[in-house]
Parts: sequence; structure tokens; C-alpha cells
Amino acid sequence: MTKSYTQLGDEILVWKLMGIEKLQQESRNGPTPPGPYEAIIAPQWNGLCGSDMHIYLTALLGEEKMKEPFVLGHEASGIVVEIGNQVRRLTIGDKVAIEPGEGCGRCGDCKKGAYNHCDYMKFAAADGRDGTLQGLYKLPADLCYKLPDNLSLEEGALMEPLAVAVNAITNIANLPHSANVVVFGAGPVGLLTMAVAKALGARRIIAIDVQKERLDFAKTYLAADIHVASPMKENETKESYSQWHADLIKDSLGMTDRGIESIDLVIDCSAAEVCMQTGLWLLKRKGTYVQVGCGPLYVKLPMRIIADRELIVKGCFRYGPGVYPMAIDLVSRGLIDLKPLITHKFKWEEAVKAFETTKVGKGDDGKMAIKVMIGPPPRIRTS
Amino acid sequence: MTKSYTQLGDEILVWKLMGIEKLQQESRNGPTPPGPYEAIIAPQWNGLCGSDMHIYLTALLGEEKMKEPFVLGHEASGIVVEIGNQVRRLTIGDKVAIEPGEGCGRCGDCKKGAYNHCDYMKFAAADGRDGTLQGLYKLPADLCYKLPDNLSLEEGALMEPLAVAVNAITNIANLPHSANVVVFGAGPVGLLTMAVAKALGARRIIAIDVQKERLDFAKTYLAADIHVASPMKENETKESYSQWHADLIKDSLGMTDRGIESIDLVIDCSAAEVCMQTGLWLLKRKGTYVQVGCGPLYVKLPMRIIADRELIVKGCFRYGPGVYPMAIDLVSRGLIDLKPLITHKFKWEEAVKAFETTKVGKGDDGKMAIKVMIGPPPRIRTS
Amino acid sequence: MTKSYTQLGDEILVWKLMGIEKLQQESRNGPTPPGPYEAIIAPQWNGLCGSDMHIYLTALLGEEKMKEPFVLGHEASGIVVEIGNQVRRLTIGDKVAIEPGEGCGRCGDCKKGAYNHCDYMKFAAADGRDGTLQGLYKLPADLCYKLPDNLSLEEGALMEPLAVAVNAITNIANLPHSANVVVFGAGPVGLLTMAVAKALGARRIIAIDVQKERLDFAKTYLAADIHVASPMKENETKESYSQWHADLIKDSLGMTDRGIESIDLVIDCSAAEVCMQTGLWLLKRKGTYVQVGCGPLYVKLPMRIIADRELIVKGCFRYGPGVYPMAIDLVSRGLIDLKPLITHKFKWEEAVKAFETTKVGKGDDGKMAIKVMIGPPPRIRTS
Amino acid sequence: MTKSYTQLGDEILVWKLMGIEKLQQESRNGPTPPGPYEAIIAPQWNGLCGSDMHIYLTALLGEEKMKEPFVLGHEASGIVVEIGNQVRRLTIGDKVAIEPGEGCGRCGDCKKGAYNHCDYMKFAAADGRDGTLQGLYKLPADLCYKLPDNLSLEEGALMEPLAVAVNAITNIANLPHSANVVVFGAGPVGLLTMAVAKALGARRIIAIDVQKERLDFAKTYLAADIHVASPMKENETKESYSQWHADLIKDSLGMTDRGIESIDLVIDCSAAEVCMQTGLWLLKRKGTYVQVGCGPLYVKLPMRIIADRELIVKGCFRYGPGVYPMAIDLVSRGLIDLKPLITHKFKWEEAVKAFETTKVGKGDDGKMAIKVMIGPPPRIRTS
Repeated sequence: MTKSYTQLGDEILVWKLMGIEKLQQESRNGPTPPGPYEAIIAPQWNGLCGSDMHIYLTALLGEEKMKEPFVLGHEASGIVVEIGNQVRRLTIGDKVAIEPGEGCGRCGDCKKGAYNHCDYMKFAAADGRDGTLQGLYKLPADLCYKLPDNLSLEEGALMEPLAVAVNAITNIANLPHSANVVVFGAGPVGLLTMAVAKALGARRIIAIDVQKERLDFAKTYLAADIHVASPMKENETKESYSQWHADLIKDSLGMTDRGIESIDLVIDCSAAEVCMQTGLWLLKRKGTYVQVGCGPLYVKLPMRIIADRELIVKGCFRYGPGVYPMAIDLVSRGLIDLKPLITHKFKWEEAVKAFETTKVGKGDDGKMAIKVMIGPPPRIRTS
Repeated sequence: MTKSYTQLGDEILVWKLMGIEKLQQESRNGPTPPGPYEAIIAPQWNGLCGSDMHIYLTALLGEEKMKEPFVLGHEASGIVVEIGNQVRRLTIGDKVAIEPGEGCGRCGDCKKGAYNHCDYMKFAAADGRDGTLQGLYKLPADLCYKLPDNLSLEEGALMEPLAVAVNAITNIANLPHSANVVVFGAGPVGLLTMAVAKALGARRIIAIDVQKERLDFAKTYLAADIHVASPMKENETKESYSQWHADLIKDSLGMTDRGIESIDLVIDCSAAEVCMQTGLWLLKRKGTYVQVGCGPLYVKLPMRIIADRELIVKGCFRYGPGVYPMAIDLVSRGLIDLKPLITHKFKWEEAVKAFETTKVGKGDDGKMAIKVMIGPPPRIRTS
Repeated sequence: MTKSYTQLGDEILVWKLMGIEKLQQESRNGPTPPGPYEAIIAPQWNGLCGSDMHIYLTALLGEEKMKEPFVLGHEASGIVVEIGNQVRRLTIGDKVAIEPGEGCGRCGDCKKGAYNHCDYMKFAAADGRDGTLQGLYKLPADLCYKLPDNLSLEEGALMEPLAVAVNAITNIANLPHSANVVVFGAGPVGLLTMAVAKALGARRIIAIDVQKERLDFAKTYLAADIHVASPMKENETKESYSQWHADLIKDSLGMTDRGIESIDLVIDCSAAEVCMQTGLWLLKRKGTYVQVGCGPLYVKLPMRIIADRELIVKGCFRYGPGVYPMAIDLVSRGLIDLKPLITHKFKWEEAVKAFETTKVGKGDDGKMAIKVMIGPPPRIRTS
Repeated sequence: MTKSYTQLGDEILVWKLMGIEKLQQESRNGPTPPGPYEAIIAPQWNGLCGSDMHIYLTALLGEEKMKEPFVLGHEASGIVVEIGNQVRRLTIGDKVAIEPGEGCGRCGDCKKGAYNHCDYMKFAAADGRDGTLQGLYKLPADLCYKLPDNLSLEEGALMEPLAVAVNAITNIANLPHSANVVVFGAGPVGLLTMAVAKALGARRIIAIDVQKERLDFAKTYLAADIHVASPMKENETKESYSQWHADLIKDSLGMTDRGIESIDLVIDCSAAEVCMQTGLWLLKRKGTYVQVGCGPLYVKLPMRIIADRELIVKGCFRYGPGVYPMAIDLVSRGLIDLKPLITHKFKWEEAVKAFETTKVGKGDDGKMAIKVMIGPPPRIRTS
């Protein structure tokens, strides 16, 4: 019987980033056997995201130039091919979503449930560490989340960006009951954030973006109320535009400063300064603003409005405990449909094309690219 | 027997603001009799604060020029001279601290305990409404807080700025247990904020200011750790200074990014952009920043740091429920000593001098002015 | 043109409770004109609830025998017939739901948003105070909540019990995101509690009751998972039964002690000791239990389980701020359907029959009584 | 040079529990070398607590008879004698306090910061696992907390019960600012709980116990207000006694139901049903009750009071993240003085006498036993 994926001991294929916009395939030895609490996964699908693109286009890791080629990929699903002798919850052959960050489990941050702040975090394709665009990938078994039967491996790979959204909405924003939520930016993370808010009972979802096409998608996909951001006029400052624009949004959508139609929560997934400003002007008194997108180091914010209206501004970094199980459950229960977001799928050997499609934001089919995915590597038998 | 203060029916003296730096005394009829739940107070001491000075120096109410002369004063203590027939907790002759803002009690904000956001708020000496620099002042009886025997009327007048500090530390910052707290700005509100943090069990109080004299006061007064902010070098931007300065502060005071010596809470009472920036750089992951001082509408903030470190930034506007009783109790129990803060006292008729002393920041005695106070008006008998 | 309801100045009809199971109709003068912030309502529909029945059947107010006859009714809708000169949000003719409790607005509890604990609370048909089974009813205008056009006056009268449910789920339980919720007792409050949990995004609703008929209703009405409580065996104690029964419930419904299928929240609307016990055994570690139903003063609870599993047990008393607007909004948006709960409607003059139907729990039609309602009084013209 | 404590490779002494009140000394091989993140400690001082006594007197582990002899001890300090090659924060020779419970670090509970609920928890001297009354003890290095120079090893051993108190006051009770706190039970955990509340800024500490001697200690030690519980009268039920007694306590100490002198927090460290009941009657509306002591499985509680007053009842199990560092810091900073609590110290070979002294509650010196401690084992040289 033919096995459908790579196994421990096999030689494996990987996609390495060599420098700016330079991806190269390579074959290498697969991982050593798993420790007692580890598993080895054959990654099947990898999604591409904004941070992948940033690295691909700049070869920068944070502020610094990458030093060595390394393997990209951190939004991945896979199949379990080997488990350590203490692993109880996984079986060989399980389809799993992969949480790409491994906290040390011993430091104060990990112990208090804030492992995303662990100083010893090992994160796939970050800090020059190899990611999941590999034939085999070894990781702690507790970072493999079994997919229920009604979820595909393509959907499994999207659990990572969905985890970002679940974390923002639950752990950080603590989405209030029956809340009106404004999301700036209707890219993949923005759309997922809206989808999670909706699945968890938000009253009204309002999507704001400059691209009408994206907002139309949000409207069809989520029944979101949408607002196409007007262009700034010449000589206009972001500051004056922001306040004026916030009023325009409220007026056009029938939102108010107080009561049932006021805005409880703003989540910025755009990383644009003008959106951050506008978002703060939009909020009701004591409302919450969450920054998900990662933009310039410094931005100008209306601090006097934050003070006078007692707003709460919160940052958001990756995801924390409990997020993956909820992400999988929301999709499995049909509350979030990931399939429409997967606009373009490429074969393993077309990885470069996948990156280029994400870069351009549009496929050869002329269709807007939301989430672009790379399929499983072909098997290389070595024995 | 001679009565020591004005009574209902008497003609009263008031200090009116006529325009920029123009105060004028006037005598007028006192208030009409109190409603069933109202009280009439003879204000005794009035403290001056930054917002008084702002109005005095600019004649601006918010963004707009004042239209009519009005009476200043909102940090006041007084003596109860008349009560409505439903008032149970006050007796004529009681010494009281006055809460100067009256919410409507009927709107959604008032009902949920956020009366500081009441759209119908009547606040002394704000919006052109007459304040407490008057011989008699009528207000709802529940805004009069009886002073215990061990508190003087001078101290009573300081309950208003102390309420700001109590609110910032409790309702907004929710001071964590055994927290390390950094306060920017060692003026009256900054010092009171430090004092409240200390009284409520903060582990370490760190005061930062540009004036060594103020910090020396904080050190003696509160055993605060102090850091005199270094001047920015020529051609230096606030942004580069802020990050560098935050590191300097941590190093010089032995603070760390994680663990028992990390900074849990930053409160800005300076309203200076460079302090806000530095404060955000100082915080530990998931730490809290509270904006008390009210500065420029827009400031540049390190949003990427807010995001990556999952900081929480909160605004603070006046004070809410439960704050006055706690303020009075902390002073009465000896946990906060207000007396050293009262650096200059002026007689009623020297009100102009009080304003001028606050403006200069120094008395004729050469002593740094922290809190300047104006005493009780002389009585004018009319009947 | 004929007006359809009583007006200020008219003589009015009321239903008074004279003693145990003794209701008597009476006509009397209507209320005096409204104060500036008051409104006069012509109550239209009144629902009956457990506490009405308790008073009707025992003539007890709390622990004490009622002293004077008084008017029953506190679940009411009505039409605005007169407003005070400061009332802005109501117009004569508006259909409104009535919040039956008036806090003083001046005490510490009211100011901090806990008006349900106000020591001076005036609550309809409690403490011997007249309720809403009257031709006209005067109350503060802010306790009248305008019904949107798509809500009927019958539904408006159900806002009161719905407010209890909204308060329990939001203000008290703080329903976690995607929570599994167990509700004991499938009477009106239990069903409404389930409906609110579902409307606000609960993952799974589990209804437990001894009556299969009620649970079948819950299943059809809400797609709730149901569990018919098995009868206790002879000689069995509640204590041993409770633990065994909790295990049975978990097993039969596929619930677990940890993870996505564990029970996050238990709400008891049954007031039965054995349910309270079972509910505590059901919860996951750190889960929350809320007591809505009001049973015996003392009950036996598994305190060691509360301690070892770090459970949180919370009480719930009436409702607080923000609850009525959310209740109305959830129904108006179609997330909660109140109509199926109104099983029996009686004319004003059949009030006694309404009480008797509630007492028996079944109508003449043999149909299980969930919510029984009394219609508007006929108009008595006096001028 | 003579080494002052046992070393890796040495044979070690242990104290084993053989059965009811049967302790036996034994010598055995010491532990194998530490793994990369482990340390080996030479335990120096062991404190005895209520749960030690329960096992000693009953030989029960939970509900079941112990199967095999095992080593007691879980309140221990020690000296580091060996560390794994990845351990960075410890050095051989360091004095440390030992956290006796090791979570798995991989399960959902551990990851979310609730390692005290870890299903795979390995806790010293629980479940038949060997404890710290041994010459050498191997554990993860992150469970060793370095003691500052101003703390003795005797004090270090008390960090374990202090951690229970810190956890109850911070993580569970979330001690409100300036709170009035009632603690039932003035044994070691009760006293430490009071001490932590005081160190973290509680307004007023009220100790309630039946033993005047213990309360006198609390008064001297902490300036606590004390109330000696009156004995129940013949034929009196706990229920009637509890309500009456709560009123008596409030009256005698000048506490009220509302306002600044009302009771914000009750912590029961007595595990007596009558105290739990009284505690609930004492609380102000929306007040918090925390159960620390572990008593009978079922107790009768005034659930109607919990409901009507919206009380919050919380359980408490051992301790969680951040607790040890805060415990050590509070003692090191002089906010908690542990020395007066150590009433009796015994040599290693007098361990049986230590247990007997704890059992009797009094030393040969006639002095009340609060905390009884067992000193370091003599060294057995094997090479």
C-alpha cells in the first residue's frame, strides 16, 4: 500500500529563503526521533500571511537582516507520522493543526498563562528558525490539535490566523455581550476577526477599508455593515480627517455616542495610522480599542480623547492558551466558514508563485487573493 | 453669640472671572432655600488647580472663549448652613468636603455608575457655571461628605484633587497588589497619586520629573524613589530620547523587564508627550498605563510597543462612585498626610495673589508652591 | 375619535389582594399629575410570575403577613398618557415596557450602579406598595423603555422576567465566550435564561428539569440539549444522589471535566436543593454557578468541591443597569422569540382565573401554562 | 573542609510514615543526577501543617487508606547541591524555598496558568509520593526560589503556607483596595492570611476564633481587631446562632452593612460550618467569601442570603503562578514577620516529637504551638 506522506527516516524537501524574494527548494535529512512528549508531523498545507510576505520581501527579521537561509512557513496543518512514548492524545495518521510557537513552560510568563511573552519562545520561521514548509516537522505533541472529521487539512492550516483572531476577540478584547464591533482592514486577519466576533454573538459588525472589493466580500461573507473609507483630501491632515471621518461613519451607519447603537469595540487590523485615529474617535465612553495589525513604531493618537472618554487601548501579540481548541470548534460547528477565504491554492513546487500571488494581491484568474496556500510536498523515498 | 459664617438669606461675596487674568469681587444675593434633598454650604477653603489656572490665564472654556463672567472654584470645603427636609445624613454645622459635579441620576451613564460621563453633568466652574468661590453654595446633599473630627477644613478642600488620585489608582488603574508604580509629574495631582498608591499597598513608588526640587519633596514626603529626567540633547527627537531614557530609568533604579522589580503601572500626571512615550517603554508586558494629566489633543505613541507587549492604556476623567469616602478615610486614618502639600494660604480678599502665586509656582517666601488655598469669605450681614 | 386607554384625571380600576387567594377589583382616583421627570402610563398587559403567586397564595411579604390590601402586578407594559415637562425621550402614545423598581439615585449603591441594592428602593407590588394591575401608573420617565414597532405590548410585559435573565447571564454570570451552560428549571425564568444565553453566543444549552413536558418545550423552542432528572430512589439522600446524578448527566450528554465539552456555567432557576448540589458537581474547575431561583434560607452545599475545584458561586437579585435596553433589543432583533412563552391570555376582568391557571400550571385547554397574562383594564370615563 | 549538608551520591536519611501515628527513619540511596532543567536540594527545615497531621493521624490519602509507606514533608527550604546543565538561575549553595507541586506544563490547565488543577500534578507527600523529609530531594529548578540574604532557612520553609495565604488574598479574593477583611480561624494559615491582607493594604483585619489565646496572638502580632466567638447555647442550631452571631460581631466591632465600615471580604480558614454560615451573614452586598480551610464535604449555607445580597463565594486550592516570589518579597521587605509564628523547633531526630507537639497544640514549655518545625538531617558520608 502506498503511503501518502513522508515518514520518519525519509529524506525531506524544504523551501528555504535565501534572500530578498529568493526561495529555493532543498532536500535534507528529516528530523531525529521524537522525545517522549514530542510528535513528528508531515506538514500538508501552508498558508501565507503578511509577516511571511514581509520577510520574503525584505529578508528582515525584526529590525535585522537575516543571517542564514531558513525555512519559511508557520500556518500549517499536517499528519502525525510519529509520536513519543508518553503521548496519549495523538495517534499516527491523525490530521492536526499546528500551533507554531513553543514556550519554555518553566518561566514566569509561561506559568501564568502568558506563554506568548515567553523569553525563550521558539516560533516557526521567526528569528531565523526553520518553519513548516518542510516534509517533516518535529514539535511538542501538545502543539498538535486534532482536527475533527468535518474539517479538511486546508482548513486546518488556517487555524493559525484564526487563532490570532480568536485571541484578539476573547483574551484581549473580551468581546462584550451583544457588542457593536468596528474592524478596520478587511484582509485575512480582519475578516477572521469579524467572523469570530460574529460567531461569539456580536450585535453588529462594521467593516471599514479603502478597498470596496474587500468590503463587498465582507458583506456577502458575514452580512457585515460596511463603510468604504473616503480618500483624504489634498492638504488634509490625518488628524482632522480622522475626527471628521469618524463622524461620517457614525452618521452613515446610524451609530450613536451612547446607548444600544454605540460602538463598544474597535479592532484595528489595518496598521494604518489614520485608521487607528479614526477608531479611537469612534468609540463610546469606556469603549475598548485593540491593536492587532502591526504598523509603524510611532503613531499620532488622540490621547486627550482617550483620557476624556476613558477609553481602553490594548495591544495584542499572537495568541495564548485555549485559543486553538476554540478556533477549531467554531469552524467545526459551522459558525465560521473558512473555505471562501482560501482563494488560491498552489502545489508544493509552485511555492514561488504562491508568494508572488500574495505579493500582487490577485491571482492569474484576476480574482482578489485573500488566503493563498501551498500544498503538501511530494514524498521522497530514501529507503 | 457670633456666627462664624454666612447664612441662608444673607447677601454673599463671590470672586468672578471677568476675562484673562481678571478676577473681581462682587456681592450678590445668596441662593434660594434648598429642595428636599439639597443642602446649602458656606464654602470655607478653596484650593487652586491646573484647570483653574488654565481658565484664569486663557479665559477659555474647553476650546471656546468664555461668554459671561462666572465664579471660579471647585476644590472646596464648607460648613452646612441649611438642609432640605429629606436630608438625613447632614446636620447644620457639619464640616464637609464638596464633590463639585452633579450627575443627572437618570441617564444610562449615571445608572451604571459612570456619572462622570453624564451628558447632563453640572460641574462647578466648568462650562460657565458658577463655582465655589462664593459665600454660599447650594448642591445635592449627597455631594457633601462629612469630615471626621480629625480633619480640618483646609484638608477638606483637598479632597477634590485627592479624589482624582483615588479614582485613577482604584477605579481606573485597579492598582495591582504589591505593584511597582511609576508616576510622571510631581505636581499636586502626581504627588497625591503617589500618596494613594502608597496608602493602598504599592510596593515601590517611582517619581519622575524634570524639577529636582519637586522630586526631593516626593522623596521626603513619601519615601519615593526618584529620577530626575535628563534634558534632551540638541537635535534629539522625543522618540529616540524616550526609549533611551526608559532604559536609563530602569538601569538607574534597578528595575527589570520581568519579575518582582518590573514596572506594573505607569501613571502620567505630566501631560508631556515625551513622558507618555517613556512611560510606555518602561512597562512590563501586559502592564497598565493611565493618563491623568490632560495635554495636547494628539501625541505620538509607540503603538508597536503597545501591541507587542500587550500593554493596556487607559484614560481617566475626573472621578466616580465611592471615591470621596475613600479619600476622606485614607486621610483620617493617617495614611495620607495632606498638610505638607498646602504650601501657601491666602485670605479671601487676597484671592488674586493666590492665583498669581500658583501661576509663578513660588511664593513671596521663595518656597515652591504645591497647593495654594484661599480662605473663607468674610460675613456680610444683611438682616 | 375614541381613545383606547385611560387618561390622567380618569377614575381607574385596580386589582387588590385582600388576603390569601382573595383578589378584588376596585375603582379609585387615578394619580396626581407627573413631576418634571415623571410619566403616567396606562398599563396594558401584566404577566404573572412565581413571586406574584407566592404572595397570592400566602399573603406573605417576605417573612411577614401583609398588613393592608394592595395592588398586585409588576411585569407590565403600557402606553404613555402623560409626561413631565423635562421628559425628552417619551411622547404621549408611546408603547413602553415598565421597569418596576425605582432606586433613590442618591445613595452609594445607586451611584455605583447597584441600584438593585438601594435601601430606599420602591418596587411595584413589593413591601405592600401598589403594583401595575391598575388603570394608570405613575413612575419616573427613565423607567419607561420605548418598544420598537416590531414588538407588541404583550411582549413588552415580558421584558421584566427577560430582564432577570439578561442580568443573570450578563451582569452576574458574565457568560464566557462559547460557553456550555446548564440551566436547572425550565419554567419561564429558566427558559428565558436559556434563550438569553443562546442569543449571546453560548455554545451549548443544557436544560434539566423533572418535567419532561417542559424540557420538550425547551428542546423545540431553543434546540437545547435536555436531561430529564431521574427520581431519587427510596432511602437515598440528596447528597449521594447529587454526585451520582451529575456524573449521569455528564455521561448521557457527552460532557467532560476538562476541555471544550466541559461545563462553564450552571444557572439554577429551580430553587431546589438537590439541583443546587448537582449543579456544583457538574462544573469544570473554576466554573461559575449562579443562583437565580429563590428557595429555602439554608441548603446543604458541597463546600469541599467548591474549594477543591475553585468554583465561583454568585447570587443574583433582580436586575441592574443596561438590562432593559438589551432585553428589548434581543427580542426586536429576532434573537429571542417571546411569543411561544405566552401560553394563556386573560381579559382584565378574568384576573382571578389568570392567577388560578398559574397556580394549577395548566389551562382549561389542558395546555401547560408557561406565562399567563392579564389584559388591559376597560376604560372608565369620569369627566 | 567539612561540608554542611548532604551531597549527590550520598546515602540519605528519610522519615517515612508507616501507618497511623507511626513514623520511621530509614536510610536509602539518594536521587540520580538531575536532568537538564532539574536541581537537587538538601532540604534543611520542614514545617508541619494540618494536612500533614491529618495523614499522620489517619493514614488516609484523600478518602483512601495509604497503601505503601512514604516520606512526609512539603513545607521545606533547602540548599542547592546540584543543578542540571540548562539551569541558569540557581547556583550550588543557594538557599531556596521549595514549591512542592510540579505541574506537567503541557495540559490545558497548566498552559492557562492554572497548574494547581493539573491532572498530572506531582505534589510532595500527596498521593503516596515521597515528600521533603529527606536528605536530598530532586525537583525542577523552576520550583526552587532563591531566598534573599535577609531570610533564614527556617523562614524559607514557611513560604509554602505563606503561598497559600498569598494565593487566597491575591489570585482568589482579589483583595479590594482598602478592604475590611474578616478571617475565621487564627491558626497558622489564618494568621498568614491576615498578615498578607495587612501587607497588601487591607483597611481593617478582624480575626474570629473560639480560642482567646490565638486571638490575643493575632492582636499583638498584627494589630488585628479580634472577636472571640461565643459558645452556642444548648438546643441552639448553627443556623439561628450564625445570623445572631453575625449581628453581634458587627455591633461589637462597629461594622455596618453599607459604607466604609462594611465587610468586603470574608476568608474562612476554620473549616467549621458555623463559621462559614456566620461569614456569609457578615458580608456587605456583593461582598466576597473565600473558602481556604477544607472541612466536611457538605455544609449548610444560607443560599437565600447569597442570592439576595449577590454575594460571591469562591473556592481556593493550593496556589498558582507568581505566588512564591511575592511571598518571599513580602517577608524580605519586612511587611510580614514569620519568626513569631515559629513557636517550636525540633532536631531532625526528634521528628516524632514535632508531630506530637502539633497534635497536642502545645509544647512541653506550655506554649501554644503555632508552627512546629523539623531541622536538617545529619549528614551520612558514604564515600
